[in-house]
Amino acid sequence: MCELLGMSANVPTDIRFSFSGLAVRGGQSGPHRDGFGVVFYRGKGIQEFRDDAASCQSPVADLVQALPIRSTAVIAHVRQANAGAVNLENTHPFHREFMGRHFTFAHNGQLPGVKKLRLGRFRPIGTTDSEHAFCYLMAELERFDRLPTVAQVKAAFGRAAKVLSGYGVCNLLLSDGRALYCWRTSKLVSITRRAPFGAARLEDADMTVDFAQVTTPKDVVTVVATAPLTDNECWTELPLKRACVLRAGEWH
Amino acid sequence: MCELLGMSANVPTDIRFSFSGLAVRGGQSGPHRDGFGVVFYRGKGIQEFRDDAASCQSPVADLVQALPIRSTAVIAHVRQANAGAVNLENTHPFHREFMGRHFTFAHNGQLPGVKKLRLGRFRPIGTTDSEHAFCYLMAELERFDRLPTVAQVKAAFGRAAKVLSGYGVCNLLLSDGRALYCWRTSKLVSITRRAPFGAARLEDADMTVDFAQVTTPKDVVTVVATAPLTDNECWTELPLKRACVLRAGEWH
Repeated sequence: MCELLGMSANVPTDIRFSFSGLAVRGGQSGPHRDGFGVVFYRGKGIQEFRDDAASCQSPVADLVQALPIRSTAVIAHVRQANAGAVNLENTHPFHREFMGRHFTFAHNGQLPGVKKLRLGRFRPIGTTDSEHAFCYLMAELERFDRLPTVAQVKAAFGRAAKVLSGYGVCNLLLSDGRALYCWRTSKLVSITRRAPFGAARLEDADMTVDFAQVTTPKDVVTVVATAPLTDNECWTELPLKRACVLRAGEWH
Repeated sequence: MCELLGMSANVPTDIRFSFSGLAVRGGQSGPHRDGFGVVFYRGKGIQEFRDDAASCQSPVADLVQALPIRSTAVIAHVRQANAGAVNLENTHPFHREFMGRHFTFAHNGQLPGVKKLRLGRFRPIGTTDSEHAFCYLMAELERFDRLPTVAQVKAAFGRAAKVLSGYGVCNLLLSDGRALYCWRTSKLVSITRRAPFGAARLEDADMTVDFAQVTTPKDVVTVVATAPLTDNECWTELPLKRACVLRAGEWH
């Protein structure tokens, strides 16, 4: 299994605190030592960092934890390989351009038999079930001949996720930079931080941040993860098998 | 204008020496301070690093120069913005998945009027002439209903590059991981290093490497760049307006 991390915020926000909590699970406090990846949206562009080494040992992951990248939408993933060899092309997140937008995707779970699903023009580069599932999801979007609205993406995402969930454990994060689309069949929790901000302490590392020191009263930031990343805050499970959408840190 | 760097090798090769020569031109010895990007192929996967900060100041560029990534195909670019704002989505290299392969592209030059060219399913995310040109090139590939051979990509690349060259300065690098495809209308030089290896000294930085110490007698590495990166080796101009292909370090 793997672990997911997503973020949506109404102002460009530094995700390093949460990423640090995830990264130590990549081979240190957790067994997810088969690579990691993170995609930051900045405007319509993305910055991505990935490695097929364990995130707790990768110099690329060290860099991400040292870089003050501020973003309004982030998807990250640490991998424990099940289907597909340990290599770069099998690391999440996957992304594709559609109608002039980067669509980015990460999956937690296993989907045996999912490769029977027919694809459109988007094809997997690696050999994971997850990337096949992503290409299947993208085929749902291919029906549009212009950039679909967030509501249209949500509906297509929900349709595809429902089919995919018939194959196994299917916790999904998708982003097009405008929104973060989430789907849970087993494990996916979230927390929304807003004023008055408090301090948060990582569960897996000796790190605390006082968000009151690094935010303004108007900031709203929601973090989604496979399991709670902090041990002094209350994380909420996402609804089961329902497409949920975050925009600017708020659920819609 | 911008500067290009490409590499093709028959064994996974460390490109840091050449990248260091390019990176100092990103705002220090050269005026190319509007971002940079580099894509490393490892198998069918890629590792990419990009920033909209000048490469001579970017912590991401520092990381690339510290990372011992070994690759058989690399495309890098430092940008001096002409068409299109300074932001992430306008940084080269651009890439798209087609038939289960990453296609990666970078351009040096200006192509006024190129946006008149009609595109297929691949659309620009940013606003540069260069990305429009790339999407036009990809439309040439879209005619294939399976992965085209290297010879077929070369032919399609040559057809597109000829049309694009009608719009202005058009020095191009394209890779699909199997080969590095090159096209010159003004500036693009190359050097092939093979046994017996000697020492090379960067033109723009106080750095020398003795390739004999870091290679085996069978290694063949070709580097392509906008301008020679070393001052004690003989670089050769690429032929004018002819699609040239490097595979495993050798011209084909």
